[in-house]
Amino acid sequence: MTAPNAPDPGTHFAGQREMLLRDRASAALGMHVELDEPGRAVVSMRVSADMTNGFAITHGGFVFALADTAFAMACNEDESVTVAAGADISFLKATVEGQVLTADARRRTRSGRSGVYDVTITDETGDVVAEFRGRSFTTRGTLT
Amino acid sequence: MTAPNAPDPGTHFAGQREMLLRDRASAALGMHVELDEPGRAVVSMRVSADMTNGFAITHGGFVFALADTAFAMACNEDESVTVAAGADISFLKATVEGQVLTADARRRTRSGRSGVYDVTITDETGDVVAEFRGRSFTTRGTLT
Amino acid sequence: MTAPNAPDPGTHFAGQREMLLRDRASAALGMHVELDEPGRAVVSMRVSADMTNGFAITHGGFVFALADTAFAMACNEDESVTVAAGADISFLKATVEGQVLTADARRRTRSGRSGVYDVTITDETGDVVAEFRGRSFTTRGTLT
Amino acid sequence: MTAPNAPDPGTHFAGQREMLLRDRASAALGMHVELDEPGRAVVSMRVSADMTNGFAITHGGFVFALADTAFAMACNEDESVTVAAGADISFLKATVEGQVLTADARRRTRSGRSGVYDVTITDETGDVVAEFRGRSFTTRGTLT
Repeated sequence: MTAPNAPDPGTHFAGQREMLLRDRASAALGMHVELDEPGRAVVSMRVSADMTNGFAITHGGFVFALADTAFAMACNEDESVTVAAGADISFLKATVEGQVLTADARRRTRSGRSGVYDVTITDETGDVVAEFRGRSFTTRGTLT
Repeated sequence: MTAPNAPDPGTHFAGQREMLLRDRASAALGMHVELDEPGRAVVSMRVSADMTNGFAITHGGFVFALADTAFAMACNEDESVTVAAGADISFLKATVEGQVLTADARRRTRSGRSGVYDVTITDETGDVVAEFRGRSFTTRGTLT
Repeated sequence: MTAPNAPDPGTHFAGQREMLLRDRASAALGMHVELDEPGRAVVSMRVSADMTNGFAITHGGFVFALADTAFAMACNEDESVTVAAGADISFLKATVEGQVLTADARRRTRSGRSGVYDVTITDETGDVVAEFRGRSFTTRGTLT
Repeated sequence: MTAPNAPDPGTHFAGQREMLLRDRASAALGMHVELDEPGRAVVSMRVSADMTNGFAITHGGFVFALADTAFAMACNEDESVTVAAGADISFLKATVEGQVLTADARRRTRSGRSGVYDVTITDETGDVVAEFRGRSFTTRGTLT
């Protein structure tokens, strides 16, 4: 039996999952959710030809998009709506069509309505492709 | 006839244009180049349904991708290959499907092989959607 | 005579000046305010021996502090209290003891309670020493 | 006795220590090195009256300077000279005169001559005051 005010342990995951199902962008890019926990998310994606730039390497926008999706899942830890206020990314290694990128997002700090989340993007060999740091802001709205 | 050491005035634009033609990512996202000058580029894009996230607003990755494309064009000022070392973005206004975003990239500083470029992203009403600052690094390679 | 609700044109500058007078840090570092307008501030400082690091070049913390002071003056445009939410700095040229650094801060965008301000730090030869971008947040408090 | 090719275990620490001894800025600010290992450094500092701004809170420049010193020690892992290419800081909690700030810097990634280091700054209660991320660049010079 659950006390009246106890949080439903399934609420978080349901909210997250639903948010992702409604995320057309991530679906269109072929992103795959490997892990989804409060404050943590792992998302992977294969680089398609349509994600390469004029130098035939992965366009930074898609590396960012993958990290941003993992960040959004990690920072939406409950039914509050938390949005990205901003982010910084450092590009460390170029990748090409066909490689599989994985973004591992972890909460670093939450303070009031602000949060800082780190996302490391690696390729299938384990090399670091980019380091992303997201700044979150929790709005007064809720998901439902 | 051209003096042996005179720069070919068409070289820059040819290099840029060719780079963009080979940029499958920007083409796939429906980006349109409004302006292309050394140190400056303006690129626009309509937000499609596939660019929205679970909150039905434009996924930050696509705002970043638009800015990153304008940045890449602005910082590839000659036949050298200049790549993005990193970037910071602040999200200021949410947008939705159907809106037209324009990224205006301008060189701020070049010093040795490092550069700093500012990109302002606005919507069709002129409101600022995001502010992006890119850090470039000029490699020892050339485009041709 | 002034209408009851008209803003006192001297209020801004008084508030700013008073804020700076109470700024012990800037005074202790020998900072000099060259210009102070809403959304704009120019502050200079001579690099002392106590501002150099183990490589005998100016410690990045003091370059940042100079930029941060100019940013604080530029973003406190009225009697509201606006604070720094964060900042990014790119170091482009090393300087040494005795050089004079000048930070020129300008508002780039204000949107709701958030703002983005750019600060260029130059040395006495006009070379760019660093580029700083500050993120401001306007609190619900006031200066008086 | 030491084999001819064995690294001298004291070399790293000697280089670091010497660098810090020559760091007049850190000394003048009263910084205390708590820990100094390759890729890791912990440095603390008491906030003096001269480190406060016009709002009577710690000037962001000194929070940055503390983090930057810890970052410099962590990223100078051997006799190569590694410098700060840039940094981003998010300010999360204000502090006042008399508080003791501690910066804990850890290597996140090194790739070629580029590195990313994270520095968390806490106060004496353990609250996070700021999160700093430094970008390093290893030059071709050496310390000796």
